[in-house]
Amino acid sequence: MRDTPKRSMTWWAVLLALPLFFGTAISQDDAAPATEAAVEAEAEEGPIDEYLELLEEYGAEYAPAFDFFATSMLWTVIAAAMVFIMHLGFATLEAGLTQSKNTVNILFKNVWIISIGLLTYAAMGFNTHYPGGHEDWNGWIKFGGPIGDLNGPDDDGVLGQSWGYAGLDLAMTGFGDFIFQAMFAATAATIVSGAVAERIKLTSFMVFSLILVAVGYTVAGSWHWGEGFLNRLSDGDLPFYDFAGSTVVHGFGGAAALACVIILGPRRGKYTKDGIKPIVGHSLPLAAIGVLLLWFGWFGFNGGSVLSADPGPLGLVFTTTALAAAAGAVASIAVSAILLKKPDLSMALNGILAGLVSITAGADAVGPWQAVLMGTVGGVIVVFAILFFDKIKIDDPVGAISVHGVCGIWGTLAVGLPFLNGGNEEISFVSQVIGVVAVYAFAFVFSFVLFYAIKLIMGVRVSEEEEHEGLDVAEHGAPAYHIV
Amino acid sequence: MRDTPKRSMTWWAVLLALPLFFGTAISQDDAAPATEAAVEAEAEEGPIDEYLELLEEYGAEYAPAFDFFATSMLWTVIAAAMVFIMHLGFATLEAGLTQSKNTVNILFKNVWIISIGLLTYAAMGFNTHYPGGHEDWNGWIKFGGPIGDLNGPDDDGVLGQSWGYAGLDLAMTGFGDFIFQAMFAATAATIVSGAVAERIKLTSFMVFSLILVAVGYTVAGSWHWGEGFLNRLSDGDLPFYDFAGSTVVHGFGGAAALACVIILGPRRGKYTKDGIKPIVGHSLPLAAIGVLLLWFGWFGFNGGSVLSADPGPLGLVFTTTALAAAAGAVASIAVSAILLKKPDLSMALNGILAGLVSITAGADAVGPWQAVLMGTVGGVIVVFAILFFDKIKIDDPVGAISVHGVCGIWGTLAVGLPFLNGGNEEISFVSQVIGVVAVYAFAFVFSFVLFYAIKLIMGVRVSEEEEHEGLDVAEHGAPAYHIV
Amino acid sequence: MRDTPKRSMTWWAVLLALPLFFGTAISQDDAAPATEAAVEAEAEEGPIDEYLELLEEYGAEYAPAFDFFATSMLWTVIAAAMVFIMHLGFATLEAGLTQSKNTVNILFKNVWIISIGLLTYAAMGFNTHYPGGHEDWNGWIKFGGPIGDLNGPDDDGVLGQSWGYAGLDLAMTGFGDFIFQAMFAATAATIVSGAVAERIKLTSFMVFSLILVAVGYTVAGSWHWGEGFLNRLSDGDLPFYDFAGSTVVHGFGGAAALACVIILGPRRGKYTKDGIKPIVGHSLPLAAIGVLLLWFGWFGFNGGSVLSADPGPLGLVFTTTALAAAAGAVASIAVSAILLKKPDLSMALNGILAGLVSITAGADAVGPWQAVLMGTVGGVIVVFAILFFDKIKIDDPVGAISVHGVCGIWGTLAVGLPFLNGGNEEISFVSQVIGVVAVYAFAFVFSFVLFYAIKLIMGVRVSEEEEHEGLDVAEHGAPAYHIV
Repeated sequence: MRDTPKRSMTWWAVLLALPLFFGTAISQDDAAPATEAAVEAEAEEGPIDEYLELLEEYGAEYAPAFDFFATSMLWTVIAAAMVFIMHLGFATLEAGLTQSKNTVNILFKNVWIISIGLLTYAAMGFNTHYPGGHEDWNGWIKFGGPIGDLNGPDDDGVLGQSWGYAGLDLAMTGFGDFIFQAMFAATAATIVSGAVAERIKLTSFMVFSLILVAVGYTVAGSWHWGEGFLNRLSDGDLPFYDFAGSTVVHGFGGAAALACVIILGPRRGKYTKDGIKPIVGHSLPLAAIGVLLLWFGWFGFNGGSVLSADPGPLGLVFTTTALAAAAGAVASIAVSAILLKKPDLSMALNGILAGLVSITAGADAVGPWQAVLMGTVGGVIVVFAILFFDKIKIDDPVGAISVHGVCGIWGTLAVGLPFLNGGNEEISFVSQVIGVVAVYAFAFVFSFVLFYAIKLIMGVRVSEEEEHEGLDVAEHGAPAYHIV
Repeated sequence: MRDTPKRSMTWWAVLLALPLFFGTAISQDDAAPATEAAVEAEAEEGPIDEYLELLEEYGAEYAPAFDFFATSMLWTVIAAAMVFIMHLGFATLEAGLTQSKNTVNILFKNVWIISIGLLTYAAMGFNTHYPGGHEDWNGWIKFGGPIGDLNGPDDDGVLGQSWGYAGLDLAMTGFGDFIFQAMFAATAATIVSGAVAERIKLTSFMVFSLILVAVGYTVAGSWHWGEGFLNRLSDGDLPFYDFAGSTVVHGFGGAAALACVIILGPRRGKYTKDGIKPIVGHSLPLAAIGVLLLWFGWFGFNGGSVLSADPGPLGLVFTTTALAAAAGAVASIAVSAILLKKPDLSMALNGILAGLVSITAGADAVGPWQAVLMGTVGGVIVVFAILFFDKIKIDDPVGAISVHGVCGIWGTLAVGLPFLNGGNEEISFVSQVIGVVAVYAFAFVFSFVLFYAIKLIMGVRVSEEEEHEGLDVAEHGAPAYHIV
Repeated sequence: MRDTPKRSMTWWAVLLALPLFFGTAISQDDAAPATEAAVEAEAEEGPIDEYLELLEEYGAEYAPAFDFFATSMLWTVIAAAMVFIMHLGFATLEAGLTQSKNTVNILFKNVWIISIGLLTYAAMGFNTHYPGGHEDWNGWIKFGGPIGDLNGPDDDGVLGQSWGYAGLDLAMTGFGDFIFQAMFAATAATIVSGAVAERIKLTSFMVFSLILVAVGYTVAGSWHWGEGFLNRLSDGDLPFYDFAGSTVVHGFGGAAALACVIILGPRRGKYTKDGIKPIVGHSLPLAAIGVLLLWFGWFGFNGGSVLSADPGPLGLVFTTTALAAAAGAVASIAVSAILLKKPDLSMALNGILAGLVSITAGADAVGPWQAVLMGTVGGVIVVFAILFFDKIKIDDPVGAISVHGVCGIWGTLAVGLPFLNGGNEEISFVSQVIGVVAVYAFAFVFSFVLFYAIKLIMGVRVSEEEEHEGLDVAEHGAPAYHIV
């Protein structure tokens, strides 16, 4: 940031207050310090005593349930760590597919997104999605407060650290539930980050992404994960089916990205009267690292969404996830080789992601060959989608709208097709269409209005000189590389 | 690919059909959609009900077995994800140790390998290695069909998602078994990829690697893991001992690589009349990232090969794996410093891998000091092997033949030495020799014949101009880096 | 290494003997090969038999304890692998924040550190920290011998691979205990590595780091983890509280780094009469990869320190760890934007690490809002600390002293503050002060004396020409990059 007007300094000062604000907000829920009881209990008696107490309380025939619960909870936190590493994947993928003069900016945005995603989810997201506390929830919009001591007792005296929290169908503690879901929250903003890269103003993006994850994702997520209206379709008999978030996470991000790109416009020099001039990424190794880390993390994203360590679905979900990604890669390689007349690495990488997004809605509901088919179609679609958006001058440097937005639709609808879901009568194609339309429309409109307001208030695009010079030096005062 | 003759386009079109072919193949096994029953069961009753049913079925004294099974299965899928990330390790290691003009090509090959490895293992590998279905298995060669719904019941009505699938000695579901083993399948081809880098024709490599993993590895693996003849030595009393695949995975890949390099010849300009001219790698950070990711993933490769969460062997295997890698690094550092008169980073990195390959055959069968010794010897061997192959003009850009092929022999024979295996009478040095000879000979001959046939049919080497220009621009039309 | 005097070759030859020395040392403890019994037991009976034996031995009401133990042990080894990957994080962070001409040197040092850390911990560290064997332990200094077969029986006949090893409060086998703790051992030296980068002589660093981890960390760690005097404060009623090692690991490394930097002096050209001339890092993507991998690994570092899979503390620790890191990032972003007039990526990255170090001492003892507060303060402190050390001409290229040393003090003291620990009467602020003073003073003095002795004997700093040329070519004969 070359010139630093006073307004800007105030802005950063406000920012400093942010975590403290969330901290205070969180603390209101929780006058007594969070874990006193837990710490004391731990100090005096180890898990074996706790275990024996559970035995007494629940009766001997439920004894092994605690072990299953402990195993499931372990998987929950490991899966959370794997979803966390997806943010490194997104950061390196986005950096690799863009110019080296904007790399610092991209890394900075991604550090911001994961940090603010975790803090806002603690402050308001989690208790909106899991609305145990507010019974009068209308299914459309209502915000929950900050988390407190999720290990402690709820109103009925059930400890959040016991398997009483949610039984064995959701085999995790309150904090386990929180940390796994929190890692998802920032994903939507990450997807937008890629699409608006190389020309967006940093502070505008920071404000937009903060509100998108704190408010937008919180609302849309509650429709599906907060027992909202998408869960109540046909009186709850035919709820919207989106296993790990093809629509609620990826589609949401893709639709938001589209709205922003429309307002923001393409990078200068991309669409000229002489045609489309490709702006090549600066490091395909970084991009490849990103995609393979995303694939790795996706095992936690989909696998963790089993919500327990139930062996049957766990093995199935890992298998469908892997096969769909592999099929997506092969399909994209083939289609892009035919269309582009060369074996294109970035298309192969996008094919992997296309396969992964395509299986995310139904990873637990289809078999291996259906997964291969869904991934293959996703891998074909993504190539055409990328070429299509380029044709209509929607400039998306990393193909995020195509990968997450378009394949999110395919994956969500596909799991509603009887020949893919095995005629499962609990999944309705109509409900799938309703879910897609509702989430995509909301994400698009919310983002459009918000981003347009930001445009009016503080502007959304860097100056022509800054864009030409690159955001790293212009906004951050430092280049990403200095290799001599 | 500069010029795109019609033949080439046809080739890619055929490729597109590939995943669909596998998909269809898989589906033949499984007329009813894969998981209908499972999905319904899940929807109606959670794991607790399933658990209580198991109780009733097996009797109360077996109750906790389900929990141990669930824990073991969780480890299986996590280990699979860790082995998956080894493919990122291989990709970055190979890219880092070669020239920047071939980086896109290398990343592309590795994306191809992992994708096709998963698909072919689903289509034919898994059911060949685990031949429950074909009782008349002769122990030498016989192919199984594609996987179907591995969660469903087998011929005896035992559910693949229950611990009845293979008991507690192989504590995983059918899909867990599949996904863990599938991650191994592509490794052999990855090893070859490194050895033939920088001059192989892309489409030829794609065909070769596809057949190598689909047919070659499938057959060799079945000898050991499919209850084949290596498991039946001395009437099954003294089977070939190769815990996680020093020979069956790494040795197989190393021997295949040697055959290919002999046919392919060295990179131009490497061996001149003025002596050996080193072609230095373009990014040692990429190489270091690769090796440390491989070490990380190896904990899943060896640790997952315990095939359950049995605490005793699990801790031992992690310990021996870590100590062998550390010892290999220190040994390579010392030997290369003496021979090359400098502390060589790439030798240190190869020393880590040498230690890891050296312990892979016996990670569960030796103690900590034996692991240190085996890793140390591996670290010494690898330096001499790399220098030796360079001397006889076998041009292996990443040292794959030395690391995987030569240390694979050492590791496999070492576990047969009484002073290392503790006089374990169930491991026979003779069986170890038979296993090494059989697998290496098969891998070498299979690869030699196949690669020679490909040479005759479509050629295996890029033109002199393409090699000079680099495969990235020549084959893929895009450079890997564009840092300004 | 340009010239290779005979002395140097001898040095490397000695080095080669090192792993063999450790190997032999380890073996002395263990005349009979390590795992003979274990291997045979495994071969004859699977885990189910072992499980049924446990049932008989302990009585049916303890039956499920084995399952909880197995789950906990699984978490231990997975956490060990996650801590391992932190070494890749440290390596890439240090490389990214320094000049490209010293990258090979930095990667080499880090490969050395992790390798030697594992070997020395097996040779002497583990049995010093866990002093079951030497009853007359005075609490200050006493070295244990090398590890042997940790799966085997102890003097009382309890198998190290059973949960009898340490009950369910420390739910891991002997080898599990070893491998998890061993991964911590090298961390102290890694921290020093960053602070002394770009001008330290390689062989001097190798000797220093070897002795630091083998002796220094072994002693300091035993005070806290070996039931030493810090655990016995107030007759053991108010022991020093350092959950996962804010002081014992990070503070130790930071204080050691400070001592070395004082002796070593700043990089040439950093502090001139014209003021401080920043020496910019060569690759911020590498640095960002490093920090996000460190964050990922920290879930294993803190989460694994629960020492079991106890669901309550596990979820809490993941949550506090994540929130502190996020808060640290946001705070550093804000403070550095105000002070430096730009959104600084490297400060944001250091803010993440500051938050992580700040929560490490109390991750299990505070609630979510306290974690946010502790991370926020850490994120503020680190920016001022980095600027302060630069002002007093302590040249620390990566900010390691500020991140680990200064935030280590904050985090350790913070958990002793009643308004943060919830008035927990088992944590004493005075004990916290004693622990910090003792460990920091010891680390500083030990390192100062050792490093000064090395300076006198073999010198610690490269020549002016070597520093100017870069250590990669001067010491290793190879540049890190060769991108054309």
